[in-house]
Amino acid sequence: MSEMTTEILEQNLGKIVLVRLKGGKSLRGRLKGFDQHLNLVLEETEDTTNVESMRKLGLIIVRGDNVVLISPPPR
Amino acid sequence: MSEMTTEILEQNLGKIVLVRLKGGKSLRGRLKGFDQHLNLVLEETEDTTNVESMRKLGLIIVRGDNVVLISPPPR
Amino acid sequence: MSEMTTEILEQNLGKIVLVRLKGGKSLRGRLKGFDQHLNLVLEETEDTTNVESMRKLGLIIVRGDNVVLISPPPR
Amino acid sequence: MSEMTTEILEQNLGKIVLVRLKGGKSLRGRLKGFDQHLNLVLEETEDTTNVESMRKLGLIIVRGDNVVLISPPPR
Amino acid sequence: MSEMTTEILEQNLGKIVLVRLKGGKSLRGRLKGFDQHLNLVLEETEDTTNVESMRKLGLIIVRGDNVVLISPPPR
Amino acid sequence: MSEMTTEILEQNLGKIVLVRLKGGKSLRGRLKGFDQHLNLVLEETEDTTNVESMRKLGLIIVRGDNVVLISPPPR
Amino acid sequence: MSEMTTEILEQNLGKIVLVRLKGGKSLRGRLKGFDQHLNLVLEETEDTTNVESMRKLGLIIVRGDNVVLISPPPR
Repeated sequence: MSEMTTEILEQNLGKIVLVRLKGGKSLRGRLKGFDQHLNLVLEETEDTTNVESMRKLGLIIVRGDNVVLISPPPR
Repeated sequence: MSEMTTEILEQNLGKIVLVRLKGGKSLRGRLKGFDQHLNLVLEETEDTTNVESMRKLGLIIVRGDNVVLISPPPR
Repeated sequence: MSEMTTEILEQNLGKIVLVRLKGGKSLRGRLKGFDQHLNLVLEETEDTTNVESMRKLGLIIVRGDNVVLISPPPR
Repeated sequence: MSEMTTEILEQNLGKIVLVRLKGGKSLRGRLKGFDQHLNLVLEETEDTTNVESMRKLGLIIVRGDNVVLISPPPR
Repeated sequence: MSEMTTEILEQNLGKIVLVRLKGGKSLRGRLKGFDQHLNLVLEETEDTTNVESMRKLGLIIVRGDNVVLISPPPR
Repeated sequence: MSEMTTEILEQNLGKIVLVRLKGGKSLRGRLKGFDQHLNLVLEETEDTTNVESMRKLGLIIVRGDNVVLISPPPR
Repeated sequence: MSEMTTEILEQNLGKIVLVRLKGGKSLRGRLKGFDQHLNLVLEETEDTTNVESMRKLGLIIVRGDNVVLISPPPR
């Protein structure tokens, strides 16, 4: 993982991020932790795959190999 | 696996967790063990993929590479 | 593989286990052996994917990377 | 690969085995060789995916990562 | 990663690139960073999968194993 | 790769082999080279996936992780 | 990667090659660079998946794990 990726993720600890997973699922949650495989810990997570029926997931651990992209909030 | 992931899983040993697997399957069971690959041991497990027809699986070993996310219960 | 996984599998040597594979196939057989990749040796195996048309497979070797979960029998 | 797997495959060298591959293909052939990745050498191989239209493949090398399970003949 | 790949990506830092992902998604964004796994940091990113309904994603981290190809702008 | 696999492939250098790839594609070509990952070099290759519309590919390099099986010609 | 593969790719630097990717996409472009993972740099690239609607991609980097086969031009 490049230093820039680490830096961006560290700057966004405690902030809401959008995560897209393989298979099409989208999550939105507050970034609590991560490691070099992009394993993520999110809290207050919502499954936003279907905008009309969001589901609350709360605290979750995401296995990094499912991650397609991570998008921090606009500043 | 980040220390935070290990910490969260250790705090939830003996508690009910929700596990989503690749391919869309959902499980709910009591977390008995885990390792750094997210291989999991669950007991009292139910396959909750179809809410209308949950199936009891009891004690199971989940191979970690199938795991998408793990969600501990709300505190 | 965690010690607990090894312990559970060792306790179930010689017993009937249920194995779910990627792609949706289900097997039921007597556990004869395993290794740390979850490669399995089963005997008296039945393919239980279609409950109405179970097929006898007898002694089989399962390549571990196909395994989703292993479920020992209820005690 | 566990010693038991090696032992079973060695005992079946020269015998007809059934091999199921990822993607649903089934093969039946005489086991001539194998290695620790479950790469296989089979001879007199038939593609038995469609029972009504079996195809003769003769001598083949199977790349191990395609193997789901190997089933020796009943004794 | 070949030196040429590194060189091309370095020459395009700060420029708009097109990225195609496994599963068919297309992205267009300004290249801010990369590493040897092709993990990418893009800003001002748009999801251009459906040309008629582009979606703004802003700053994103792309996990490299999803990347099919990267196309710098014509000079 | 087992010694037997290497031996079979070496014996078939310069001969026509059939190669099946993941995703269902079939190739037929003259084996010019290979390595331990089953990366292959074939010449006079034809794409024989659709028997009614074979396509000539000539000299090709096949990335080994796509290979399902390799079948030398009957002797 | 076998020496022969390296040799063929080196002989074709600067020449038009055909590349087939997992998922069915076909590319045609001038080979500018490669490495041992079959990561490729192509220029003047066209997406030739649909012969009736080729798309110009220009200079691209292809992540090697997407490559199925590479076909140099007939001599």
